[in-house]
Amino acid sequence: SVNPDLASERQTASFSVEKLTALLDGGAEQTRIRRAVVEAIESDPVFSRENQYFQTQNERYEAAVRKAVHLQKKMHEMGWTENGPEYKYIYRALSGDVAFLLHRVFMRSISVLGSDKQVAKWIPLATQHKLIGSYAQTELGHGTYLQGLETTAVFDTATQEFILNTPKISAMKWWPGDMGRSATHTVVFAQLYIHGKCYGIHPFIVQIRSLQDHSLCPGITAGDIGPKMNFEHIDNGYLLLKNVRVPRENMLSKFCEVRPDGTYVRQGSQKINYFTMTTVRISLISDEVLTPLMKACTIAIRYSVVRRQSKLKPGEQEAKILDYQTQQEKLLPQLAAAYAFHFINDYLQELFNRGYREIQKKNFDMLPELHALSSGFKAVITQHCTAGVEICLRACGGHGYSLLSGLPSLYTKILASCIYEGENTILLLQTARFLIKCFMAASAGQPVPPSVTYLAAVKHGKCPAKNKLDFLSPDIYTEAYQHVAVRLTSSTAAKLQDLIQSGVKKHDAWNQCTVQLVQAAKAHCHYIAVKNFAETVEKLETKAGIQKIMKHLCDLFALHGIFSNTGAFLHDGYTSAAQMDMVTASYLDLLAVIRKDAVPLVDAFDFTDQSLNSALGSYDGQVYQRLYEWAQKSPTNQMSPAYERYLKPLLHNTLSKL
Amino acid sequence: SVNPDLASERQTASFSVEKLTALLDGGAEQTRIRRAVVEAIESDPVFSRENQYFQTQNERYEAAVRKAVHLQKKMHEMGWTENGPEYKYIYRALSGDVAFLLHRVFMRSISVLGSDKQVAKWIPLATQHKLIGSYAQTELGHGTYLQGLETTAVFDTATQEFILNTPKISAMKWWPGDMGRSATHTVVFAQLYIHGKCYGIHPFIVQIRSLQDHSLCPGITAGDIGPKMNFEHIDNGYLLLKNVRVPRENMLSKFCEVRPDGTYVRQGSQKINYFTMTTVRISLISDEVLTPLMKACTIAIRYSVVRRQSKLKPGEQEAKILDYQTQQEKLLPQLAAAYAFHFINDYLQELFNRGYREIQKKNFDMLPELHALSSGFKAVITQHCTAGVEICLRACGGHGYSLLSGLPSLYTKILASCIYEGENTILLLQTARFLIKCFMAASAGQPVPPSVTYLAAVKHGKCPAKNKLDFLSPDIYTEAYQHVAVRLTSSTAAKLQDLIQSGVKKHDAWNQCTVQLVQAAKAHCHYIAVKNFAETVEKLETKAGIQKIMKHLCDLFALHGIFSNTGAFLHDGYTSAAQMDMVTASYLDLLAVIRKDAVPLVDAFDFTDQSLNSALGSYDGQVYQRLYEWAQKSPTNQMSPAYERYLKPLLHNTLSKL
Repeated sequence: SVNPDLASERQTASFSVEKLTALLDGGAEQTRIRRAVVEAIESDPVFSRENQYFQTQNERYEAAVRKAVHLQKKMHEMGWTENGPEYKYIYRALSGDVAFLLHRVFMRSISVLGSDKQVAKWIPLATQHKLIGSYAQTELGHGTYLQGLETTAVFDTATQEFILNTPKISAMKWWPGDMGRSATHTVVFAQLYIHGKCYGIHPFIVQIRSLQDHSLCPGITAGDIGPKMNFEHIDNGYLLLKNVRVPRENMLSKFCEVRPDGTYVRQGSQKINYFTMTTVRISLISDEVLTPLMKACTIAIRYSVVRRQSKLKPGEQEAKILDYQTQQEKLLPQLAAAYAFHFINDYLQELFNRGYREIQKKNFDMLPELHALSSGFKAVITQHCTAGVEICLRACGGHGYSLLSGLPSLYTKILASCIYEGENTILLLQTARFLIKCFMAASAGQPVPPSVTYLAAVKHGKCPAKNKLDFLSPDIYTEAYQHVAVRLTSSTAAKLQDLIQSGVKKHDAWNQCTVQLVQAAKAHCHYIAVKNFAETVEKLETKAGIQKIMKHLCDLFALHGIFSNTGAFLHDGYTSAAQMDMVTASYLDLLAVIRKDAVPLVDAFDFTDQSLNSALGSYDGQVYQRLYEWAQKSPTNQMSPAYERYLKPLLHNTLSKL
Repeated sequence: SVNPDLASERQTASFSVEKLTALLDGGAEQTRIRRAVVEAIESDPVFSRENQYFQTQNERYEAAVRKAVHLQKKMHEMGWTENGPEYKYIYRALSGDVAFLLHRVFMRSISVLGSDKQVAKWIPLATQHKLIGSYAQTELGHGTYLQGLETTAVFDTATQEFILNTPKISAMKWWPGDMGRSATHTVVFAQLYIHGKCYGIHPFIVQIRSLQDHSLCPGITAGDIGPKMNFEHIDNGYLLLKNVRVPRENMLSKFCEVRPDGTYVRQGSQKINYFTMTTVRISLISDEVLTPLMKACTIAIRYSVVRRQSKLKPGEQEAKILDYQTQQEKLLPQLAAAYAFHFINDYLQELFNRGYREIQKKNFDMLPELHALSSGFKAVITQHCTAGVEICLRACGGHGYSLLSGLPSLYTKILASCIYEGENTILLLQTARFLIKCFMAASAGQPVPPSVTYLAAVKHGKCPAKNKLDFLSPDIYTEAYQHVAVRLTSSTAAKLQDLIQSGVKKHDAWNQCTVQLVQAAKAHCHYIAVKNFAETVEKLETKAGIQKIMKHLCDLFALHGIFSNTGAFLHDGYTSAAQMDMVTASYLDLLAVIRKDAVPLVDAFDFTDQSLNSALGSYDGQVYQRLYEWAQKSPTNQMSPAYERYLKPLLHNTLSKL
């Protein structure tokens, strides 16, 4: 039975939850397929996550391998294929709790970087799991700066082999997933040396464990890097190479080849490879970043209408905590952001598909823009969603701090997304470099890519809003965001030029501007996110009920951004203090409006109880019952392991005889 | 041997680290005592934390009990007493990783709330550990709002007993530490009923486990609430009472007594009790909040001078990451905040000692101010330090995400401080209520407590700074902070009055202002913290070397606050856009100045390697070696537990035969 405090929230929905779900999925047919996948996975006990919060790192790892192996059977049974419509829903249905993800990266790197012959040899072996692959790039001493990798691969013309070595401890491979305990093979990135000359980083296929008994191969030292904040299910590993020889054919050679005599030949374009990196950044947004935020919102908002604490009016029943303005101000902007980023993700996916088509026609013009957008949005979205999940966790007070709420695991996992696939600050500076370049070009009247044409049109006007309702006009707030992005880019460009003109060396000048460059990059992405949300809402005119609530969320997303960062808008007087008070008033009004639809808005994300895995967030809202039942199953609910040895002697009073 | 990249940082210190350590400790003699305690604890293998990151919740709990029991012996051996000068350093030396903290709360509540007779009976038993106590206040359904607790205690005149019950699941006690598995007794807070009339919440001593065999007493259901984000070493518990009878003498009766005939008598003043709550909030700041931030700064800053990544100048060696402006901007403000909060903690301690002396003279005048300050600073400091630890973690990239860095555990533990002992938003609203009240009083010409007299002196001037150096003047920035605090308080007070005058009910009006009230409370605390730091620096004039670097940190703390919240200062034009650009310039300049002394500034915190328990933060900076050696000891470095069952069949190709 559904908790009446939760049930009543659903009765007053201003829109059809089912229709909104279909919109988020990209159509009712997609919703149907997704639900079928979820149903098939969740009804299979092998995929259960029920004991996850009680398991050790070893148990989590073993379960992830079990699931990965079972998934092969399941796909066969269900007739799901890697190219079928179900495939993209499987990972989400498993909540990512599965091994061998790096096996896929191993395969992709061979497909992208390998010669036709290499692809023909290795891909079938990998597809049939006759080996388990990994991807060994990062080293103890090197993550961001790939040119600095220290592992070496020296070509030996006599034997036609590469000799791989880890010359010092900082060169040890560190972090590769699936490598600590599972992988038999890996792609090692190493500095290629031929006849004493260094040719830079190249990828080599290296076998690290026996296919017979899984023992480490000669010259290999490998193992697990130990406990992490999350990802207990993944065996992130280390790898030390000592005179490990691999045949000449094991250097992936689509773009670079070493001939038998040691001649080095570079061929083809590596630009497609560069494009691969950018697509990975976009592809992780949906499953690794948006889903956790949507789950956290679902948990925190459902809990906040079931939890009653203190009184809003004297003499009345205790109030639902979502009725407190401060609680609304914590949660509802996160909900709005989840929608905003869902739509910007659609926009980026579409842009990248277009980019991919152009690249296949050998047109690489879109690459710089795609790189800037993927870098910037990866950073902005991971940052924002990580902060959002943390806010949801805290907003649930003590119960949010229990692992059984599901929120701690969502947080500790999403946090990693700020670091992997490009550390966020580094990525934002990539975006900033593009912005500065385009701003200079635009100022000089040269053409620039579509997403930054606005930089050319610097307007020195003022915000035209006359009252608080004007701030519910997308034109008004989008323009304000644009103004800030232009101002931050142009003022930082000016500072950079001033420094250089005053004699500061170029790299020093750049370093002295980086704090402000990061701000400019964020403002650029924020502007595009707001603009895209507003445009998305406009296109929903045929879906009247949904359009209205989406418009409210768009307004909230935009006004929350202004309210949280008023200085950027006030700085040059574009927005006046009086206008900022209007923003505040409209923003706070919106909270009360959206609060009414808060539960239907999270219901539309359509998470099952199993996928939320949360005592606070279940569909029926029976929070306390569930916490109690679940806690009783904890392995800590046995006789105290400390009793016989410590408590009994203590209580029986040995100490007082000291 | 010390990593040369770290050693070189120490050679250029602008001040004596040893003298700064003594200043932080409150004198060289205190430093000596502290080090002696740390040395005694760390040289004892029973207190080792070496395997902590590899342990399960059960193992952590058992170790904490072992340490608690052993600590009794140790204190006896060393001649340390609860009133001795060493006592306050023990907990810090153990990094809080010890059981029976609630036993102390059990004792304190009896001392404060019990009659002389009760104190005489229970305190010796507890002191000699003939029982283990806990403190059962929070329920599944009630944390913040104590009046809403649902556990009942009905007085039975026939037997002279109280009958305790948990009437429904939300009334179950939930969270009490030491209660899940260790405690034999607890203080239960319950609604007192006599002859059918409710007299509100009262405390009762209840035995929950046998002193003979530790089995649960009749009518008691109790256990552990399961896994949490941290605090694995504590057995937070649940407790269900079914017709549990305790004698009349078990109601703590210093302030309220139930006579044999059921007459209820209230006696004495409960104000001292109210004072106890506020002191707990202050007392936790040092060990639970400042220490973790100081540790995180130590780890992240030492790592940032050892980690080299990418090139600042082309052709040169890779740069220390602390030489990047963005890295400085992440870490150095956290360092400044650690110092700022250390000094405000001194200020609060002194104020509370003064308050305590007054209260002992039956003068309760200071109570409202102390309550407002303790609530506000508990919230502001826990919030700021939690965010700071997270920034340190992220600033260490991938290695920060490893548990072996020590940073994840610091983060997941400090996060709880935002929730316990008063949820932060609730506390800030307590402070805000005091501010509004005092602002109204001051506006009406009535006297107000010292910390808020500034609210009366509303000035409508402008910031007088003429160039960026002016912003290194404490008068200039302190005044700016004061201006913002007054503006936010007065404008929210005005909004509140307007709403009420326009017919909105008082409680609704209050709720509609809470987001802004929270801002006002934060601004008030921030102002006091800045002012106090500036005053502290001024008093250091006899310590010239130290004064200079402390002045830089004070400036950084103040300017970082403005830079991060420019809107508050720009809003009414107190600070102009041109002045804000000066703030930015001075702020960024300061980063480069303080960067030079960053390592000596964290060295002064004087943490041992054992207490940091971090592969990244050790004094010698041998980061990579330590990560590798430590990881090899992880229990995940055994043969894959999944091999025989899953990997072998997979690799030996059963699947491809499907």
